Amino acid sequence: MTPTIGILGGGQLGLMLLQAAIDWNLRVHILDPDAEAPCRTLCTQFTQGSLTDYDTVYQFGQTVDVLTIEIERVNVDALEALEREGKQVFPQPSVIRTIQDKRLQKQFYRDHNLPTADFILTENRAAVSQYSDFLPAFHKLGRDGYDGRGVQRIASSADVSKAFDAPGVLEKAVDFAKELAVIVARNERGEVQTFPTVEMVFHPELNLVEYLFAPAEITDEINQQAQAIARRTADAFGIVGLLAVELFLDKQGNVLINEVAPRPHNSGHHTIRANVTSQFEQHWRAILNFPLGDTSVYQPAAMVNLLGEDGHTGPAVYEGLETLLAMPGVFPFFYGKALTKPFRKMGHVTVMDSDLDQLRQKVAIVKESIRVVT
Amino acid sequence: MTPTIGILGGGQLGLMLLQAAIDWNLRVHILDPDAEAPCRTLCTQFTQGSLTDYDTVYQFGQTVDVLTIEIERVNVDALEALEREGKQVFPQPSVIRTIQDKRLQKQFYRDHNLPTADFILTENRAAVSQYSDFLPAFHKLGRDGYDGRGVQRIASSADVSKAFDAPGVLEKAVDFAKELAVIVARNERGEVQTFPTVEMVFHPELNLVEYLFAPAEITDEINQQAQAIARRTADAFGIVGLLAVELFLDKQGNVLINEVAPRPHNSGHHTIRANVTSQFEQHWRAILNFPLGDTSVYQPAAMVNLLGEDGHTGPAVYEGLETLLAMPGVFPFFYGKALTKPFRKMGHVTVMDSDLDQLRQKVAIVKESIRVVT
Repeated sequence: MTPTIGILGGGQLGLMLLQAAIDWNLRVHILDPDAEAPCRTLCTQFTQGSLTDYDTVYQFGQTVDVLTIEIERVNVDALEALEREGKQVFPQPSVIRTIQDKRLQKQFYRDHNLPTADFILTENRAAVSQYSDFLPAFHKLGRDGYDGRGVQRIASSADVSKAFDAPGVLEKAVDFAKELAVIVARNERGEVQTFPTVEMVFHPELNLVEYLFAPAEITDEINQQAQAIARRTADAFGIVGLLAVELFLDKQGNVLINEVAPRPHNSGHHTIRANVTSQFEQHWRAILNFPLGDTSVYQPAAMVNLLGEDGHTGPAVYEGLETLLAMPGVFPFFYGKALTKPFRKMGHVTVMDSDLDQLRQKVAIVKESIRVVT
Repeated sequence: MTPTIGILGGGQLGLMLLQAAIDWNLRVHILDPDAEAPCRTLCTQFTQGSLTDYDTVYQFGQTVDVLTIEIERVNVDALEALEREGKQVFPQPSVIRTIQDKRLQKQFYRDHNLPTADFILTENRAAVSQYSDFLPAFHKLGRDGYDGRGVQRIASSADVSKAFDAPGVLEKAVDFAKELAVIVARNERGEVQTFPTVEMVFHPELNLVEYLFAPAEITDEINQQAQAIARRTADAFGIVGLLAVELFLDKQGNVLINEVAPRPHNSGHHTIRANVTSQFEQHWRAILNFPLGDTSVYQPAAMVNLLGEDGHTGPAVYEGLETLLAMPGVFPFFYGKALTKPFRKMGHVTVMDSDLDQLRQKVAIVKESIRVVT
């Protein structure tokens, strides 16, 4: 009766999808290049193989009824072939194709009148040097940037040597007050449901979310703007599945799309504990064309990423777990990666409290207490 | 760093333990006689084998660091041998041995001054016939009774033919107002933490929990009695792990122990959604000697057991899932049993609402909406 589902990718997002899948007894096959991927022993069937190889993805797709992703760097040609043959592929390959390439993604916002920072498409480094009037800006690699790689700040002409000598997009630097995110779900019948707006605090150097507050501390008006933009973006893509919309709130009060991810997202991990429906359950609801779940909040939450400590590479050891487990409303989650390395995402901690000041205090203690070392 | 844990039993309780184990990336091996057990694809290692065979349990125990159970009908001799050799076995074999046998269990309450219905130990059917003054009573088989099997109501001497012709316990029928349950956890350092008292509504014929309300609608005084009895019972056993204490509230306002289970329990499934810490996470905390988790409640909850429809035996089909998924605060959970049969536990539905009347209305709709058929 229930369909067999395939996920491209077996990392932490796959792991949390599998955890949610247990409720409904979903049969899930996983494809991941790493024989030691976190999901390997927790799915109905695990296949080790490349996510970017046409034949591997195509053949994996043949073993399932519904195919989805937990990472967008996958072979979209194979997904399109599967879709043409009638396989359900959600999010749709066309959506993944647009989002995979930051150039197409930015152009998509412009074409659909969705607010985003001004940009110029560039073909190589020499092209970047022509736009000194446009600086300060970020130069982003069109394809294959990830977690801070593939982005360079070009403050002035002197920095042009840092630009990528490959197709990219030069994006005007936004003087932002806050970074926000809204995760939105859309199912095949076109129902759309957003999660409450969250506020991300980035690590000053690593371009990684260091911690997150939910709900964001913003005015109702800003919140409504953020929520509306997320809905409009999901509708513009016509996506079936989750879309995580990362936003800038600039100092003039404008809300601008930074980038999107067509899958569960780091900015929604707290929803496992803090919201009636988690982002992971919502993803299943969306791609299986079930009614979307209630996203309301039980308690304010924060989420702290557990990054591998600088200077430590090797088998991971988690110091301070005991302290965390003794704190009420503190929920560590480990991704089961055998090896830690500096700043690798090894887990996260959800922190909850009905009082916002208490919540902040708990976050400070959590950040002090736990370390991923070797 | 993290220990490998073994669970004897791979049914729905094992499944929910595995789901909770994902948060902490616990490595879990499962032993179950059924090659199609719900846990088979969701654990680090699955072994098909008998839970009551000495050698099978002993050898399985050798593969893990910490051994626990999700069902109490297991070979305790093997567990004791493992414990003697220094293996961590929680709950302790001595506790399982006492609870496995309803005669030892009842005698334990008497010896420890724990309130329970009056009883007489009987060796055979003929012995039961001597106690007509003690009727109405229940005759319970000492060992191997389960889910309504192994219990007979003996209303009068005319019913004595229904008594078991084997060692049993004749227990005075309690004229009860409500049936309550308190799940209590105790770790190796002796910390004890209870879950809020819940109220069980049994199916009139099947001796199975039909649905459950949390919190129970009882006075503070009764609640304190129930909570104190649960704590005292856990301390008396010195258990490490979870103890589910089923209680009668009689019409005079006395709280009496009905029976206990040394493991996660059907009366705590709602805690996955409704409480800060679920009974499953609490079990891991207790047996791994971590601080016990906060058991406070986000919202009042009910739990409806999904039983196989009468007259249907075969591959299971779940009718009405769409209706459930469209209701806010309604969380179905399916156990992944391939075959349904009349009154088999196939899943449960947790229902939550901040308003108790709304909660009751939702329960009524859920019970009307979903059916497990073939």
